Parts: sequence; structure tokens; C-alpha cells
Amino acid sequence: MKIRTVQDLGERGLIGLIRKVFPARGKSVLLGIGDDAAILRPGRKPIILTKDLLVEDVDFLRDRHPAFFIGRKSLSVNLSDIAAMGGTPRAALLGLGLPGDLGLDWIRAFLKGFASAGRDYGVDLIGGDISKSREIVVSVTLIGEGESLVTRSGARPGDGVYVSGTLGDAALGLALLNTGVEPRGRGSEAAVVKAFLDPTPQLVLGRELARRRLASAMIDVSDGLSVDLRHLAEESGAGAEIDPAAIPLSAGVRAWGGSDTLKYALNGGEDFQLLFTVRPSRRNAAGLGFLNRRFPLTRIGRIIEKKGIFKLEKDGRRRALPACGYDHFKA
Amino acid sequence: MKIRTVQDLGERGLIGLIRKVFPARGKSVLLGIGDDAAILRPGRKPIILTKDLLVEDVDFLRDRHPAFFIGRKSLSVNLSDIAAMGGTPRAALLGLGLPGDLGLDWIRAFLKGFASAGRDYGVDLIGGDISKSREIVVSVTLIGEGESLVTRSGARPGDGVYVSGTLGDAALGLALLNTGVEPRGRGSEAAVVKAFLDPTPQLVLGRELARRRLASAMIDVSDGLSVDLRHLAEESGAGAEIDPAAIPLSAGVRAWGGSDTLKYALNGGEDFQLLFTVRPSRRNAAGLGFLNRRFPLTRIGRIIEKKGIFKLEKDGRRRALPACGYDHFKA
Repeated sequence: MKIRTVQDLGERGLIGLIRKVFPARGKSVLLGIGDDAAILRPGRKPIILTKDLLVEDVDFLRDRHPAFFIGRKSLSVNLSDIAAMGGTPRAALLGLGLPGDLGLDWIRAFLKGFASAGRDYGVDLIGGDISKSREIVVSVTLIGEGESLVTRSGARPGDGVYVSGTLGDAALGLALLNTGVEPRGRGSEAAVVKAFLDPTPQLVLGRELARRRLASAMIDVSDGLSVDLRHLAEESGAGAEIDPAAIPLSAGVRAWGGSDTLKYALNGGEDFQLLFTVRPSRRNAAGLGFLNRRFPLTRIGRIIEKKGIFKLEKDGRRRALPACGYDHFKA
Repeated sequence: MKIRTVQDLGERGLIGLIRKVFPARGKSVLLGIGDDAAILRPGRKPIILTKDLLVEDVDFLRDRHPAFFIGRKSLSVNLSDIAAMGGTPRAALLGLGLPGDLGLDWIRAFLKGFASAGRDYGVDLIGGDISKSREIVVSVTLIGEGESLVTRSGARPGDGVYVSGTLGDAALGLALLNTGVEPRGRGSEAAVVKAFLDPTPQLVLGRELARRRLASAMIDVSDGLSVDLRHLAEESGAGAEIDPAAIPLSAGVRAWGGSDTLKYALNGGEDFQLLFTVRPSRRNAAGLGFLNRRFPLTRIGRIIEKKGIFKLEKDGRRRALPACGYDHFKA
């Protein structure tokens, strides 16, 4: 029998394939893939845990998004959560729900992508689980560690609201992909497609903002600015106002966004940039200027006492900004 | 609008419901549900991590298996993995893939079941993720800790092979359920149905076997004895022979198993009993006798040098025992 699908390979064969793609492991892994559970050497720093589920047809399209990048992204979105706390990732568990007739090419490319992101960020695969399912389901758990971690709840009225990089790229990239743009091109078009397919978790920036105690609160932009800023403000018991004209936009979003440019920037999710707040007393700290030479950071607004999220109109008035980001169950 | 389904409630509403069902958390949880990641106080003992995926129509049937028990079981199967290392569970992450039209009754009952198992075994829910999906997908990650942990790979030729409790109950219970038996009855029939719907993770036994250094290798019976014994023997670089007549059977399996009794016992999975090996020098240790007064433990065979799994026939000959347990992709 020629082995073409996941079903042909079987569960044991799949685990063998996974072990082959992830041979190495760091010294802190006392026991990796292949037992009832994995064992890690305890550290002295607090333990960070996060988990993200990617579901076919909801988070990605099997035929349109290359499996290699789905593999990378399934780890990157979890790395972004660790970045948003200012932590350092250590190890991952990979849960896979796979249709029996899924081709081996897909799963091989997926695992290679997952492993390549693991190498990029120093993350070992230490365990997981495989089950049969109708659609592809990828469930990644990431464990990390960190000190002086930053939560969503530390913002206070008067704090400045900052964002890293540019916003709206990933949502525009998805829109371009869905109209049939080839994912491997050059220029600004390719850059926004890459922003969707292969986002970069802001681990170094997150760690520096935490270590230098520059960020009073932090979150990653996964659902969209209008939603994630609301999460941060609500958890901090405050509100926020932003200046839409201040939102940093890439050349691609300016060129291709058309009349939806601001929508992409406000409501497009999956940029995985860091959204954070800075106390007035820290705004001119040398550290922030230093970081800003390495990472593009933009002040887009401030935390206010009044609950809710507002945008400043050109006439200087505040208007309520509706939360229009991504909700799996409203989409 | 009357809120009847998961879609009506939305992602934020669902997280609110989850926070309501899991209000308490232990002192080791520095940050729980609601941020980018959870934070745990570091301990001095090695960290244990495990993950199990349950998929609708593969691992359970929405209409036939009560949601409360699916909630309990999704935690119990992970607890069983920690038990099989001799560890102590601490906290869980819950990933849910849910169809938008799933009724709120289902998810409420599921969460209550998950929370009840969490209370029974001292496990906090500290985070997770929710996504939309076509079928229900439950992905649980469990973190625990432990010292003198027991792996699958420590068995040596001459070690006795032991199993806790009785085998085959869960597989028979599933067969009875699928023929329409009501899950809440009395007697031996209800006992096997309970064994499938609401298995008991053997945490105390696992911990005692590890702490007293009685078990040289250990695994939980999740795929079926013929498969799990093979895993243990292979990871230990050895083989095993068992006496089928020695396998402990419950009154239910004896009464209802018919001509398939031995098949249920050898190949039926999901019993979540502990399968472990004991060195000849420890066989008469006081500890094993003491544990055997609290937990029914049965010696069913021994580890041998010859690779493979064998059963002793009545004529005293060894015959190869095929691995017929559960494989998601072969089932």
C-alpha cells in the first residue's frame, strides 16, 4: 500500500513523523514526546501558560493558505501572547485534529513550518495529542516564564496608548489572498500577505518593555485595535481615546486599502503587534526613546477615566468607537 | 433576542459564563482567566504537562453522552496521564471549538461537569481559547508537578506486570450505551456505563506507586491493554507476556461481555486504570501489600527480553498478542 494520507500512516506513524521533525530538545526538557506527559525542569521565575485554537475554514483555508505557514502561525500566535506579557517562551504542546483523508504532504509541510518557528524562537515541542476530526483543528499550548510581567489591567487615566509596527496589514493581506493573490510576490502587496500568513511575534519588544518597566499594561492586537484596546481599558477599569489619524499604516495598506483603510486599521485583527500604555512620568524615559530606534512605536491616544473607547474627530470632539473586531461567533 | 445558542451569546459572553462557573482559584495562580496568558507561581518540583483532544463523533456523541460527563471526562483523561507519571495536578487550560448553533444548555452542562471534576481533584481553570468549528472539539492542557516520577521506559526483564481495578468496563459500557441503555441505572450494567462516561483517574494510587518507588514503569490504559502494554514494553526496550486468565474482570463485564469478554479486556480502551511493572525485589515489599488493601491490584504477567507482546495459552505456550486497541485513524 502506498502511504498517501494520514489514515494510511496511522496514529503511531504520525507520532513517528513528529518525532523525526522535532529531534532536538533543550536541557530544561527532562522528558519529551512519547510518554503519558512531558516533564520540565522547574525554574525560579513565574510560569506563563497560553493556548490558542486554529480551526480550518474559520482561521485558515486549507487550499489557499500554505500548510508551512499555518504551522508557523499556529506557534506564532501563542508566542505573541507570551510577548504581550513580556515573557520568554520555553516549550510547546501540539494537539492536532486531522481528517483521515488529509494528504501527507499537508501534514509534513505543517510540521516543518511549526518546527521552523520553534527554531526561530527557541521553543521545544514536548508533547501533544492527535485525534481524527472532520476539519483540521490545531491546538497549541505554550509554556514560558518571565519576571516583571505586564498584564492588561495596569493602565491608569493619563497613560499614553502606544502601538508597535503598523496596523491593518494582516486583514488586508487576507482580503488580497481571498481574491487570489499569489502569496510569494514582492513589494507592498507581498508584505501585507506575509503579515497575515506569517506574523512576527514581538517577543524582544515585549520583554524590553516589561524589563524596563515602561509598559503599565499590554495586550497583543489579535482581534483588532477597537476590540483589544477595549479589553485593555476594561480590565484596567478605565476608558481610552485614540486619534485615528495617528494610527501607523504601512505602504501596503495606504496603497491597497482604498476607502476601507481606516476600517482595516481599526478593526482588522491578527496583526500581532503590541498595544501598550505608558505612564506620563515614563514617557520621556531614555528607554522608550532607545526602543523606538529599534522598533517603530507610535503614540495613538491616551487612557481616560470615562469608560468606553472613543475616537477624536477632526473637530476635536470625542465620538464612541464601536468594537467591530473579530468575534468567532459573530463573524 | 432570546439567547439560546453559543452564537447568540458570542465570544465575550462565553468567556463571562466560563468565569462565572470557575470563580475560585488557588494561591499558586498569580493570574487566571482573562489576560493574554495565565501566570503560575513557580514550584520547586519538576513540571508535568499533558494535553488531550476530544472530538465529537470520534470520542463522544453529542446526543447520547450527557454533556456534564463529557465535561468531567475531558479533564479526567488528562488527570489520568498525570496519575500515570505519579504526579499531582495543579491547573488546566480549556480550548473549545464550538458550532455556532450549539445550544447553551449543552455548554452550561459541559462547563459544570468540567468544574466538578476540577473541584474533585483540586485543579484550577486558568485560561484557554474559544473558536468556532463544525463539530465540538475539546482540547484540555493540564499542568502538574511531581518528584520521583515514573516513565514508560523503566521496565526490565523479570519485572511483574500489574494492573489496577478491572479492564474492559469502559468499552462494554460504550457498547451498551450505543444500544440505547439509559446512563443512570443501578447494578453492574450502570457500573460499566459509568466506567465509560465518568472514569476515575487513579491519582492517589499513581502517586503512592511513585513515592514508594514500587513501579519501575507505568502507563494508563487508554488505548487498550494490548496497545498500552506494547507502548510500555517498547519504550523500555523489552517485551511482555501476560496470562489472559489473570486479567481482572468486573461483574458487569462477566455478566454482559458474552463471547467478547476477553476482547473487551484486552482491546477495550478508556478504562484509565494504571498498568505498571514491579521489580522482583520489590514484589514482596510491604508497600505493595499495603496499597493492595486500598486498591485492587492484579499481577497479569511479566516483562521478558524477547520483543513483542505475548499471551500464555492454556497449554503453556506463548502466542503473539496482536495490538488491536484504539487508533483514531484505523478505527
